[in-house]
Amino acid sequence: MLVKTQVKYIQSLGQKKFRDATNQFVAEGSKIINELLVSPNVETTALFATASWIARHGTEIGSLPNDIVHEIKESTFNSISQLKTPGEVLGVFKKPEFGGIDVRKSICLMLDEIQDPGNLGSIIRTADWFHIQKIFCSKGCADAFNPKVIQASMGSIARVEVIVGDLESLLNEFHDVPAYAAVLEGANIFQLEPIDSGFIIIGNESKGIRSELLGRRIEKITIPGGGHAESLNAAIAAGIFMALLVGRSQ
Amino acid sequence: MLVKTQVKYIQSLGQKKFRDATNQFVAEGSKIINELLVSPNVETTALFATASWIARHGTEIGSLPNDIVHEIKESTFNSISQLKTPGEVLGVFKKPEFGGIDVRKSICLMLDEIQDPGNLGSIIRTADWFHIQKIFCSKGCADAFNPKVIQASMGSIARVEVIVGDLESLLNEFHDVPAYAAVLEGANIFQLEPIDSGFIIIGNESKGIRSELLGRRIEKITIPGGGHAESLNAAIAAGIFMALLVGRSQ
Repeated sequence: MLVKTQVKYIQSLGQKKFRDATNQFVAEGSKIINELLVSPNVETTALFATASWIARHGTEIGSLPNDIVHEIKESTFNSISQLKTPGEVLGVFKKPEFGGIDVRKSICLMLDEIQDPGNLGSIIRTADWFHIQKIFCSKGCADAFNPKVIQASMGSIARVEVIVGDLESLLNEFHDVPAYAAVLEGANIFQLEPIDSGFIIIGNESKGIRSELLGRRIEKITIPGGGHAESLNAAIAAGIFMALLVGRSQ
Repeated sequence: MLVKTQVKYIQSLGQKKFRDATNQFVAEGSKIINELLVSPNVETTALFATASWIARHGTEIGSLPNDIVHEIKESTFNSISQLKTPGEVLGVFKKPEFGGIDVRKSICLMLDEIQDPGNLGSIIRTADWFHIQKIFCSKGCADAFNPKVIQASMGSIARVEVIVGDLESLLNEFHDVPAYAAVLEGANIFQLEPIDSGFIIIGNESKGIRSELLGRRIEKITIPGGGHAESLNAAIAAGIFMALLVGRSQ
């Protein structure tokens, strides 16, 4: 059974201000939910699933208190789902909490105004693939807990910490940490060696990285292509940067 | 002025069967339209734009017959646009025509059931960046002339030929051409040399490449990551394959 207040609550979490106020977010789909349920970083607040899903997922939900698992009918998902084809499970979770990593000894991403939720989710997923554990987002980025970002991140939001802040202050604070910025005219990325620490900076989908961030001590790097497209999609550029600067040492 | 039959016609091109029947497609947004207008491969059928857009784009529309440029009011775009925030120009174009390239001497992509239009568009754009001129799509792929694919391809559809066909037959026909398939368990891509001809095969978002395509003579290649994500997004994997196998020789 799903009561009106629950429907309203879940719908409200579609908005950033309610996610921020409650520190919670919504995820959908069996694959993502399974990852969030077993993550040590994420606490489950409520789970809404069909009887059949619940029967098949005894292991994952075994440790949850009974009163947070709600059996609902498949047809009921229409009122709470943000997906075109609602699945058979939806969860409300507290935003993940992470133990700190040493930024000076790690590779972190900095995203400057990545506004497309699909791009942001895809970048989080790719970071997780290459074991990058921290992403700093400028205030103009899409919200990492937006349902579309959660869908595209495929559960990686439970393993990659996303922090929103002022990138300029951060670059000042860590002025001794190397920083590599994806730009259209810079050093050839194919001629660089893999790195083991530093910031990889990716800019906005149409405007690139804001000029105030491109200080002199930042290495400007380009992916030469030889073709005719004006630019690469921001998530693709981020993926290629991660592959070449981080993954290549695999 | 926009008449009812025009509205109906443009709306009908939102559906694949009408695009196939008329051999036409719709594109929106000044950046993409500008690229299509100047492309030698694409013929413009009709252009709908605000007076202000027309005034600013004399060069691009100079060679078009007067009767295919239609001045319409900004408010009118709501009835024909597929975008959330309609722009000030929309065009109807004939699908591009390409001179043939020698498949045996080129690098081509093969996409097996790439269903997400954003992924397909992004792959077309990335192919264009790395000067890959031909993409073979299985019948289960999204339609390359779907408005969402066109938006994500950012005009690259005018420069990259997309052909739909049976990939198995194609691999049989070109059995002497090397083929590299993106899989989760295969040779380490970072240890390969760049290639100058062959097929790069990318599989479906959740199922990967169908087993019937993964014959023995295909090289199975993996992007090792070292992290915890189960897989990479298909467009990101395609981007990394193109960068490492094609772009690296830049």
